[in-house]
Amino acid sequence: EIVAAAEALLRDTDAKAGMLPLTGKHVLITSGPTHEPIDPVRYIANRSSGKQGHALAKAAFAAGARVTLVSGPVTLPDPDNIEVHHVESAADMLQAVNASLPADIAIMAAAVADWRVTSEGKQKIKKDGSGKPPRLDLAENPDILKTIGHHPDLRPKLLIGFAAETKDLVANARAKLERKNADWIVANDVSPETGIMGGDANTIRLVSKDGVEDWPQMSKSDVAARIIARAAAALTS
Amino acid sequence: EIVAAAEALLRDTDAKAGMLPLTGKHVLITSGPTHEPIDPVRYIANRSSGKQGHALAKAAFAAGARVTLVSGPVTLPDPDNIEVHHVESAADMLQAVNASLPADIAIMAAAVADWRVTSEGKQKIKKDGSGKPPRLDLAENPDILKTIGHHPDLRPKLLIGFAAETKDLVANARAKLERKNADWIVANDVSPETGIMGGDANTIRLVSKDGVEDWPQMSKSDVAARIIARAAAALTS
Repeated sequence: EIVAAAEALLRDTDAKAGMLPLTGKHVLITSGPTHEPIDPVRYIANRSSGKQGHALAKAAFAAGARVTLVSGPVTLPDPDNIEVHHVESAADMLQAVNASLPADIAIMAAAVADWRVTSEGKQKIKKDGSGKPPRLDLAENPDILKTIGHHPDLRPKLLIGFAAETKDLVANARAKLERKNADWIVANDVSPETGIMGGDANTIRLVSKDGVEDWPQMSKSDVAARIIARAAAALTS
Repeated sequence: EIVAAAEALLRDTDAKAGMLPLTGKHVLITSGPTHEPIDPVRYIANRSSGKQGHALAKAAFAAGARVTLVSGPVTLPDPDNIEVHHVESAADMLQAVNASLPADIAIMAAAVADWRVTSEGKQKIKKDGSGKPPRLDLAENPDILKTIGHHPDLRPKLLIGFAAETKDLVANARAKLERKNADWIVANDVSPETGIMGGDANTIRLVSKDGVEDWPQMSKSDVAARIIARAAAALTS
């Protein structure tokens, strides 16, 4: 805690001296999975650990920004000196993101569930003895990146989305860039054999209107630092 | 680590002197949730933290037993001095439990998923642009407690199941006792407002052929110590 306070003090001194690239900027970041309830005890989840999103929040803070982190359920501690909103479902996350605008930069790193369960049970769903399983009715969730990308008056100046895919990585990322009106898509292959989901390293392809950049495998904190440095440069260019 | 080693040494000394009630006994415990995969990144989960099951494993070890813990995905550390098998799905858990028999006492504290997804995708399931959600086909999982309760030749002498319910607690527990051929059912109300799932306290109703005992609210480690003490007494009676 003392170390964190000292770091914050040093950062604030640098920030005030205008020595940090994101001084005075607000950076909004989402992180982690969302959980979509099935009944009081069960839910649909995904393997996102929140490591990349939380690393981005820390990197943005270190670069001088005021940071708002909207996090789904993760086992990571809240980063120091950062305002954290804890949410569970995609609907909750959208609400928290909207409430956190305006932002200069938004980085939507959370793995938001595409579907929620509309047949949600108020009581724990029980086996009925017939051997017949219950039906899970799904509905498409609100698309947070797309909503922010098409915001009538509060679209962030720089909007960065993530695409976690197991095939057709670049094609999917390009389509996402267009459809969601994002500036960059950080694409990564999350096939189980890559170990990226839950792991400490990441291999990124950065997709923008200018093309595709292949980044070498890096730690998630190095990926975060590089994205934040690039974002700061883009914001002032 | 040094403390754990010292504790283990003290326990072994006591155990050798025949001063611990479960010396020479094998106790098999399951703990945590199971995760049932939907595709490479998504899964169905439940809110079990594994705290009660892990506390039972520690209490059984402290009582002199050799302990095997079969644990679903939890964020708890492995208890010291205990053989831990990590599993993900209900099918994996059944296999690990079967491989761990024979046992003198088995305590099935895990919140095993009743259903698995049979439409599991080899690739991440994508929105197809139609707005129509995918269908999740479910099938009933193997019933681990029932399988062990009806084991042709390796049924543990004392078999304890758990019933996490949000209504009709005792009626459900009694039915479970019968259907699964268990000796005791540890029943608890896991409605969200109780805070039991994921929390540190538990309020138990112990259901057996002899009737129902209401236990006051206790910490999960006190619940564990009491269950283990009762189990040791039952085993030697």
